[in-house]
Amino acid sequence: MSTTAVDPVGEAATRTAATHASVAVPVAAPHDSCRRILDEMRGRTFECAAAVAICAADGTLVGMATMERLLAAAGDTPVRDVMDPEPPTVTPATDQEEAAWRAVRRGESALGMVDGTGRFLGLIPPDRLLAVLLAEHDEDVARLGGFLGSSAVARSAATESVWRRLWHRLPWLLVGLGGALLAAAIVGAFEHQLRTQVLIAFFVPGVVYLAGAVGAQTVTLAIRGLAAGVGIGRIAFREAVTGPLLGVMFALVTFPLITVLWDEPRVAAAVAVALLVASSIATVLALALPWTLDRLGLDPAFGSGPLATVIQDLLSIVIYFLAATALVT
Amino acid sequence: MSTTAVDPVGEAATRTAATHASVAVPVAAPHDSCRRILDEMRGRTFECAAAVAICAADGTLVGMATMERLLAAAGDTPVRDVMDPEPPTVTPATDQEEAAWRAVRRGESALGMVDGTGRFLGLIPPDRLLAVLLAEHDEDVARLGGFLGSSAVARSAATESVWRRLWHRLPWLLVGLGGALLAAAIVGAFEHQLRTQVLIAFFVPGVVYLAGAVGAQTVTLAIRGLAAGVGIGRIAFREAVTGPLLGVMFALVTFPLITVLWDEPRVAAAVAVALLVASSIATVLALALPWTLDRLGLDPAFGSGPLATVIQDLLSIVIYFLAATALVT
Repeated sequence: MSTTAVDPVGEAATRTAATHASVAVPVAAPHDSCRRILDEMRGRTFECAAAVAICAADGTLVGMATMERLLAAAGDTPVRDVMDPEPPTVTPATDQEEAAWRAVRRGESALGMVDGTGRFLGLIPPDRLLAVLLAEHDEDVARLGGFLGSSAVARSAATESVWRRLWHRLPWLLVGLGGALLAAAIVGAFEHQLRTQVLIAFFVPGVVYLAGAVGAQTVTLAIRGLAAGVGIGRIAFREAVTGPLLGVMFALVTFPLITVLWDEPRVAAAVAVALLVASSIATVLALALPWTLDRLGLDPAFGSGPLATVIQDLLSIVIYFLAATALVT
Repeated sequence: MSTTAVDPVGEAATRTAATHASVAVPVAAPHDSCRRILDEMRGRTFECAAAVAICAADGTLVGMATMERLLAAAGDTPVRDVMDPEPPTVTPATDQEEAAWRAVRRGESALGMVDGTGRFLGLIPPDRLLAVLLAEHDEDVARLGGFLGSSAVARSAATESVWRRLWHRLPWLLVGLGGALLAAAIVGAFEHQLRTQVLIAFFVPGVVYLAGAVGAQTVTLAIRGLAAGVGIGRIAFREAVTGPLLGVMFALVTFPLITVLWDEPRVAAAVAVALLVASSIATVLALALPWTLDRLGLDPAFGSGPLATVIQDLLSIVIYFLAATALVT
């Protein structure tokens, strides 16, 4: 029975599980009796006593015994009989959100940290896991909403001064401003079509909005799936099918409605085709962006919100005007 | 020393802290020694032994002692000397996300649950708090992305069948479809202006996008603030000032740029005025929606995402065409 004194935080890792490992935790051998472990814990100061790490002589983590199990066991039972022989573990390089999810999925409140060879490095206690999840939650929501990660702490972001709030918002808004001017240039390239049939202009906001909404749903699904440990591959196929299906539904509703309401079947056809194509592309694009960022080692949540919206919007405008060019003018 | 057997879950409460209270937890009196408490916990089965609830004779919770403190204390010390005399508590009616935030802010991993008179009802253990936070996180992200709450479990939502995914998405998309047709009708009401100056059409997507982006940032801030326990009142004033400031910046950038690039100062002026007005309104509208829903007892996150976007987009179109009518035609 000992208290581990290994420092698992070699470098200043801020985003990995290593940051949160507690080093003053109880450690015991598999053959120690529950009584002896509990006795020896008396009078000692632990950062976390939620569970005892059970290690072999070479320091390998072979199990974890929660305080509840130690208390419930009869006194002379060796701890190996009550320990979880496959405790949830992470390495110092594990992403902190992934670590927290792993604990929840295992119904455990503490996680063991081991190095590449299985040697015990420390425990991540429940209060740290809670803090990690809150911070990650906040960051995801912030990115979806168009803030940079630096303003990710909800309480401070909500109450910070007017100038700081301007500063935290401007980066994405400037990207948006560039997108807005690009959108004007794209519409401008189809000026002739607009002059020939002004009705085309009526449906630009609607097509842009609907394709954007489909993409936003997909990107949300991808971010949530990634956080929960579901690979994008498992999401991709179904989303790729869902996009065209939604597009077909949009087309089937909008074509007759616009034909009846505006008496222009060719414009109605252009809207229907644009919605079909744009929705089909929206789900694929929405998956490609977080996937690419994930591959590059960046937070996939960056691929949502403003950036995805700008790209999606510009693409929808192009698709709609191409459809209008082909079908109307 | 006893194990509490009170069942705090009278009715099928699903969103409140009561759902998560653990009932088989150690309870002791303030004058009990740490040694005695630890001795009496031996051989008993607890759902959560992270902390011991310290209760007066009438059942009132007067403190909480974590396992770490009990172990560190000298044997005969009465627990009242090592307990936290103001433990973080919630009532059964407390919102579960609020309860989880409270635990994190206090640096505690377990929360005491008490009734209106301070009588101890149970403990919410750390693994439940973790699960609550994950579920809430997931739900917020889902709503921001345009899903209904019923599809809120990330793992299942990410892998569910194509038909179920269509079903979970359609409600908001149908709202969006209605919005798209309404947008067409609004643009149609300004057909004369478009025929007079086709350049007006070029900037519709950009104005809609930028005002929407400003509103999305505010709504994100409001949701995050509410989750962290910051009232909308504290956010409102600064946001109400931030909106016009962003609008002024947009106006100062777009007016010269559009004038130079498209050689139409009157259209440039209409875009600049529209961005100023729409941005100013965007932050106020973005706060009013979650605030109203919060007042009605609904999740403020519903006021974000698709609904807010549709309303914001329609309003931006109206503002832009009114500005164009006044300044261009």
